[in-house]
Amino acid sequence: MSSPEDVVRRLYDALAAGDTATIGALLHPEFEGVLADGMPVGAGEHAGADAMWADGWKQIGRAFAAGPKPAEFAPLTDGRLLVTGRYTGHGRRGGEPLDAAFTHLFSFRDGRIFRLEQVTDTARWRDAASPLRTMTLEITDGVATVTLNRPEVGNAFDVAMTDDILALSTRLSRESDLRCVLLRSKGPFTVGGNLDFLGPQGQDERAATLHRMIGDYHMALERLASLEAPLVAAISGSAGGGGLGLVCAADVAIAADDAAFALGYAALGMTSDGGNSWYLPRLIGLRRTQQLYLLNHRLSAAEALEWGLLTAVVPAAEVDAEAARIAAKLAAGPTRAFAGMRRLLRDSFDTSLRDQLAAELREVDEIARTSDLGEGMSAFAARRRPDFRGR
Amino acid sequence: MSSPEDVVRRLYDALAAGDTATIGALLHPEFEGVLADGMPVGAGEHAGADAMWADGWKQIGRAFAAGPKPAEFAPLTDGRLLVTGRYTGHGRRGGEPLDAAFTHLFSFRDGRIFRLEQVTDTARWRDAASPLRTMTLEITDGVATVTLNRPEVGNAFDVAMTDDILALSTRLSRESDLRCVLLRSKGPFTVGGNLDFLGPQGQDERAATLHRMIGDYHMALERLASLEAPLVAAISGSAGGGGLGLVCAADVAIAADDAAFALGYAALGMTSDGGNSWYLPRLIGLRRTQQLYLLNHRLSAAEALEWGLLTAVVPAAEVDAEAARIAAKLAAGPTRAFAGMRRLLRDSFDTSLRDQLAAELREVDEIARTSDLGEGMSAFAARRRPDFRGR
Amino acid sequence: MSSPEDVVRRLYDALAAGDTATIGALLHPEFEGVLADGMPVGAGEHAGADAMWADGWKQIGRAFAAGPKPAEFAPLTDGRLLVTGRYTGHGRRGGEPLDAAFTHLFSFRDGRIFRLEQVTDTARWRDAASPLRTMTLEITDGVATVTLNRPEVGNAFDVAMTDDILALSTRLSRESDLRCVLLRSKGPFTVGGNLDFLGPQGQDERAATLHRMIGDYHMALERLASLEAPLVAAISGSAGGGGLGLVCAADVAIAADDAAFALGYAALGMTSDGGNSWYLPRLIGLRRTQQLYLLNHRLSAAEALEWGLLTAVVPAAEVDAEAARIAAKLAAGPTRAFAGMRRLLRDSFDTSLRDQLAAELREVDEIARTSDLGEGMSAFAARRRPDFRGR
Repeated sequence: MSSPEDVVRRLYDALAAGDTATIGALLHPEFEGVLADGMPVGAGEHAGADAMWADGWKQIGRAFAAGPKPAEFAPLTDGRLLVTGRYTGHGRRGGEPLDAAFTHLFSFRDGRIFRLEQVTDTARWRDAASPLRTMTLEITDGVATVTLNRPEVGNAFDVAMTDDILALSTRLSRESDLRCVLLRSKGPFTVGGNLDFLGPQGQDERAATLHRMIGDYHMALERLASLEAPLVAAISGSAGGGGLGLVCAADVAIAADDAAFALGYAALGMTSDGGNSWYLPRLIGLRRTQQLYLLNHRLSAAEALEWGLLTAVVPAAEVDAEAARIAAKLAAGPTRAFAGMRRLLRDSFDTSLRDQLAAELREVDEIARTSDLGEGMSAFAARRRPDFRGR
Repeated sequence: MSSPEDVVRRLYDALAAGDTATIGALLHPEFEGVLADGMPVGAGEHAGADAMWADGWKQIGRAFAAGPKPAEFAPLTDGRLLVTGRYTGHGRRGGEPLDAAFTHLFSFRDGRIFRLEQVTDTARWRDAASPLRTMTLEITDGVATVTLNRPEVGNAFDVAMTDDILALSTRLSRESDLRCVLLRSKGPFTVGGNLDFLGPQGQDERAATLHRMIGDYHMALERLASLEAPLVAAISGSAGGGGLGLVCAADVAIAADDAAFALGYAALGMTSDGGNSWYLPRLIGLRRTQQLYLLNHRLSAAEALEWGLLTAVVPAAEVDAEAARIAAKLAAGPTRAFAGMRRLLRDSFDTSLRDQLAAELREVDEIARTSDLGEGMSAFAARRRPDFRGR
Repeated sequence: MSSPEDVVRRLYDALAAGDTATIGALLHPEFEGVLADGMPVGAGEHAGADAMWADGWKQIGRAFAAGPKPAEFAPLTDGRLLVTGRYTGHGRRGGEPLDAAFTHLFSFRDGRIFRLEQVTDTARWRDAASPLRTMTLEITDGVATVTLNRPEVGNAFDVAMTDDILALSTRLSRESDLRCVLLRSKGPFTVGGNLDFLGPQGQDERAATLHRMIGDYHMALERLASLEAPLVAAISGSAGGGGLGLVCAADVAIAADDAAFALGYAALGMTSDGGNSWYLPRLIGLRRTQQLYLLNHRLSAAEALEWGLLTAVVPAAEVDAEAARIAAKLAAGPTRAFAGMRRLLRDSFDTSLRDQLAAELREVDEIARTSDLGEGMSAFAARRRPDFRGR
């Protein structure tokens, strides 16, 4: 008679081969399978081998080219078997890689599998199921590099783009150990809203489209503003309209010397989006903000630097490298202190002096218990470079 | 026997000629006349021909050189006669033109006029009755051009001036189809408060005068800030003291290259008025605002441009033309989008990022239903100049 | 038999000589002495001559080299004697001068002093008892000159420094007739927090030290912001870290041309203190504030002037003289108007336009009743220099 481990190993092999006959033989007639509630497909209870296949595993196989890699088989005293490991593979829709931890808890009756309960990191499944279509995301050494990736349309904002920005902000806010976000582009940073697509719409349709796009975009901007890690933007070509809000929302904005900036609202009959009406008065003052809004003034990189929209301007060929250099530097910095600074600066303008002094003291009480502060002060006293861990 | 229309036409002629005998003959002994409640003179009910003349028509004739131009005579089935038309003429005090729609509802008894009920656009009557004394107002092609017009006193603020600014702001806020306001001056823009008049007053009188002037001025500034249409200021010569608030309150401020700016408060022992303490920190930052307030720094036009108080500086001979050019351009723009921008920027500094993003989305929901946005987007897609109507 | 005045004069002489035998002879066996509750030593009731000496006068003599200078002896009808005058001398700890008004109320029995009740300006005693250790304070012609005075440690902030700043702010807020505060330094203005002392501390100790130092410092900054008199800072050498908050908090900041500015937080893993996160966005805008916080940008004096952190830059040799010149000018200005300006500008950013206009009008109502406004307006009308009294 096979051991529980043997039975389960044969099930994994049969699943990989799509061998439904063997699967049927391995499962008890009253088999019940429970897939984690958060699975993008196949979630919940399935009674019987047929249902488990049709509604569960087959659905998963359609959406993902992925399978379990068991790492450990741990028999329980009550005869059950706990398997832990990782699912690896990718989503079929966009090729987004999947790498998600799992536990499978099996129970047995009459030498067959009677019950399976799956728990897995379903957020990873969701990310792989819904890939970013308009941008890429790569996380290395604590730096999340986001590259806007539709140069053929000038990285114009449409529904796919705002979907992606919202999904991106959600992923970044779930990342632990994130220490810097770098936003850059292939082609121009962004020309703003995609008017080829919005222009021909009727009034009601356009109103609904704008509400959805801008509502999602704004939710994303709030999440980005709430990240602990600082944001660096590398602006090539141009940044326009609501897309300028991404430049504004960055803590550090490095632009190519040939980049240009414009809101464009006055030419279109639009008002404002992307937080521009919040950020610009704080960055460049009210008068210059009015000049951008009402007169649709087009800003050169040099002017944008002088006005305080940008942190630095570099030759176009160097903008990505320079921004990456700064991102790496920030990623080696005291991340929790950066988070505190970001909170304090975000809330400064609409806070009274008294309340801001109290907020500074609260942040100090927090930061005083981080190991990075101790490291920073020790390193300073010892005249050596600090080794910050972001904690 | 005369028709009702004939009787009424004869009454209009007799009124124009001041022929009280004929008027008496045309009216029934128990005549009752009702003039609209909002009339600046003669308002309310008048019983009998004599009272109607003495307390109504005669009073109107003293204050206005104006009469009714009937356009239509519409007999009602119950025998009454409805006359519609316009009063035209001008106020006698300042020559302010009057052009106000009216309806007269006449009833008859024994072939004579038994009752008259007048309804008219009384706000127009009030404007014509209380002319602006220190400035002129002309509205053409959607641009309201206001010219401060007391060069002999440097357009200094006194009670007449603040009365006028308040009246002006009220008129502008009642104008439909207003698409831009242009503020300019004959002589220097303004030297600030009139000290020749305030200086010699005793303490209590001066306190009362300042409270009235500044209270009215502030109410006017709030109304100007609430207009949908943008404001353009053309600054010649100088703008000083509380009058600098008008420069600050403009969305676009064009100054002559020889213009100068100073607050003057520190030299006088004054604190602040005209919203300067609200606008200046937002326009030029806190440090430079302190320099203007405490050290009474006198700003050249070039410095004021660099600091962000001004939008542009042009040769003195061109300041009115350049401001008029911009005003015409704004008047051809998407007025409701401008109104939305103005609201968003006015409220930005004391609003949190989250609330401002929500406000932007609400404005988008509104603007998405304007025809101007549709026109703007269509024009953009078609690579043609948009034809905005301000709606 | 001696008059009450004679007896009391002999007591004062015996106290000055420390002649306890004579003191014992002058006091009634049931003598009771009451020293003012606020006295830094010896406060409260003392029963009997011995207790009065041991717990009262002797303690005072240990802490202060000071004695009463009676000015007037006023017999009451009930036989008691009221003596008024001033205590003069200095605290023994730091040599801080003492000059405090007093009243002594004596009653008598059997020709001896039966009871003494002392009332005195105890705050002056406290100031003399707790001298400033890290800075000096001198008040002349309405200008309080504060000199940071530990050049050997670069005027770094430690507990002694924040103790002193808090004590200083309390003293200044109690001064009547204060018309300007001048902050300057011997050596560099301040290098920021003292890391030689904070660095080696353990995490809990450091957290407690930082909380105490920054809590005291912030209380001091609030008091300085609430003064009626304006603040002028003269910055030599450098201003760093939380100490930059003193530069920010000044209404006028004059720096040496070789001065440098940096926050240093990013290098240490700290967040913010000293109100920097409130002041800097208002002075130099959000982008440049981020550059100072996240990238720890080091600002030259020229850049700091251009960005709006400073009012003026002068050659290093002239910075104290120039700041003193401006302080003297402000001290000759309309102090209550300055106080109103300071309130309005402090509250501007987080206030709506409507509320700020209302606040301006309230300040005008107040200032209109000051004699300085009358003087300023009269002087202007008469083309003469105003003689402001700060009232």
